[in-house]
Amino acid sequence: MKKSDLYAVIMAGGSGTRFWPLSRRRRPKQFLPIATERTMIEETFCRISHQIPLRRIFTIANASQSKMIRRLLPQLPKANAIVEPCARDTTPSLILATAHVYLKDPEAVVGVFASDHLIVNVPIFLKKLQAAAEAARRTESLVTFGVRPTFPSTGYGYIHYSRDGILKFAGEKFFPVESFREKPSLTTAKEFVKAGDFVWNSGMFLWRASVFARAIERFAPDYHPYWERMLKALKKKDRTMLSKIFEDIPALSIDYALMEKAEHTLVCAGDFGWSDVGSWSAVGDFWPRDENGNARRGMVISIDGRENIVYNPGKTTALLGVEGLIIVQTKDVLLVGRRDRDQEVKKILEMLAKTGKTELI
Amino acid sequence: MKKSDLYAVIMAGGSGTRFWPLSRRRRPKQFLPIATERTMIEETFCRISHQIPLRRIFTIANASQSKMIRRLLPQLPKANAIVEPCARDTTPSLILATAHVYLKDPEAVVGVFASDHLIVNVPIFLKKLQAAAEAARRTESLVTFGVRPTFPSTGYGYIHYSRDGILKFAGEKFFPVESFREKPSLTTAKEFVKAGDFVWNSGMFLWRASVFARAIERFAPDYHPYWERMLKALKKKDRTMLSKIFEDIPALSIDYALMEKAEHTLVCAGDFGWSDVGSWSAVGDFWPRDENGNARRGMVISIDGRENIVYNPGKTTALLGVEGLIIVQTKDVLLVGRRDRDQEVKKILEMLAKTGKTELI
Repeated sequence: MKKSDLYAVIMAGGSGTRFWPLSRRRRPKQFLPIATERTMIEETFCRISHQIPLRRIFTIANASQSKMIRRLLPQLPKANAIVEPCARDTTPSLILATAHVYLKDPEAVVGVFASDHLIVNVPIFLKKLQAAAEAARRTESLVTFGVRPTFPSTGYGYIHYSRDGILKFAGEKFFPVESFREKPSLTTAKEFVKAGDFVWNSGMFLWRASVFARAIERFAPDYHPYWERMLKALKKKDRTMLSKIFEDIPALSIDYALMEKAEHTLVCAGDFGWSDVGSWSAVGDFWPRDENGNARRGMVISIDGRENIVYNPGKTTALLGVEGLIIVQTKDVLLVGRRDRDQEVKKILEMLAKTGKTELI
Repeated sequence: MKKSDLYAVIMAGGSGTRFWPLSRRRRPKQFLPIATERTMIEETFCRISHQIPLRRIFTIANASQSKMIRRLLPQLPKANAIVEPCARDTTPSLILATAHVYLKDPEAVVGVFASDHLIVNVPIFLKKLQAAAEAARRTESLVTFGVRPTFPSTGYGYIHYSRDGILKFAGEKFFPVESFREKPSLTTAKEFVKAGDFVWNSGMFLWRASVFARAIERFAPDYHPYWERMLKALKKKDRTMLSKIFEDIPALSIDYALMEKAEHTLVCAGDFGWSDVGSWSAVGDFWPRDENGNARRGMVISIDGRENIVYNPGKTTALLGVEGLIIVQTKDVLLVGRRDRDQEVKKILEMLAKTGKTELI
């Protein structure tokens, strides 16, 4: 048996408001230089392309996002930017993307990656990625990366794993998954952290295309007809049919639709400096900081400024006695807010929508 | 005796740092739209020109400032923008400017006005200005406006006046000045306010040119030779000589050099909504404010933003939970500071100077 190839699917269809005013409806986080000076999707693509040849890297996003992807990633073969017929959740997207790979090689391994996450330690990530691909090749399992929690987050899903039945591939441990847990309450999150056998669901998955097909059939049988029809539509290159099927698939995340139900899933420790960079506050950990904890893009001059996050590239920001602020300057909007209230940025958007200032959303 | 004409001298040579980053070395406060949407010198000029014909309005400032004045006030006859040969304090400037008027008409009344103060109630100001001109015409006094203190400021000089010997001109009361007092300590300022017969020195003066000449001779005799020589240089139109004299005059404010020493000075209540708009905090009283006390130039959208001062014209500023901040956006610099520390803006300038970022000063 030939060694099955590793393909990558970069999920780039997301949208969000948490990085407003830098992010806008038409330019979500993955297309912005949030964590570094390159856009997050460029970082994701470059990281993966160290190990996976360009022709085996796919992106999946809506039509306008796919246009932006082609601009940002001109190296990517044009056909590899898979266009979602409409905005759905991750299950329809992954059925479509995995079916693409399946038709090329049903035994190929598909690695699914978010386009807007940060990985600090790329060499370790690549080593673990090889090992996870090996696990997917050699087993009938869906494989995932779990991140050791550093605090009882209520913003992530958790994976409960077993310390028994550990498998090893390429020197890395793979733990059998006991269960997937939705975003918990704070009390529950604290219990998870204390228990020690819970990790955050990073949203990265690996599976052989054929294993995915069988897992859908067995654990998410409602979706199996769509899978079958999707394969047919792709084979026929019938776009109308493909759109119709895509729209018919219940919009659900892959966690709910499949991962929570599948058996024999394996999880590997994603200890490579992973972050979903979920808010302005979070970037404070990744940007250059001065001795008073001011994280910044652009020059900052400070008199008693502490623990601020300043995005004003190419310009100078002067801080005078301010603490714990988010300061974000864009061409048309300036945001000045408290770091500990960064989750309320969406309220500003609601207000803009109400007052008809939709061009700023 | 013909009714003597009223001339205006607008003092526009000042510089300062308190409105940085909007104000810069080459563009001090008087050339900026600080209080309203017009520059402060335009406001001053327009206010005065309701009552004084253009040919009798002079400005005095250094060469580069005078260039800016001609741009901002194209109506002003070119020769009326008097150029200071070098940067000195107000005494040399007022000797030069008053000598200009003296040579046209020694019995003319000269009104001296700061170019960067705000007057809210212009009709009352103009009425009082007429009365003060009348007082200057009819007496041998230097005449000034004093502002009733609203708090024990340590940032203004005070004028102690007498309740006896009140004169009346054009229906307005003029109080004999007991003494001029330099910027006091807080304790002293509180005593002044409590006493009730102290007013702030507004820096506005009126005098007949001949009265000024005699006052210099009698109360500031050290300056009298410069006055005489200045008249000669102006008569001869000898610029080199004029520059030489100007540079020789001790650089002192007119308060120290003359007003504190002169006798028979009169003060009139400047109750026309006067403010020197001395800091970013002060503009909060003059700009449009929302229901949460956010004073603003430019659109502001706010979630729990209170008592902030926002200068970001033509753009949108979003506030999230912040209170008591000064936010000033310019082309190259953004300032975010605490309102109660606005006096420390100069520290930022010192830091910029130290780090060689002089283009931002």
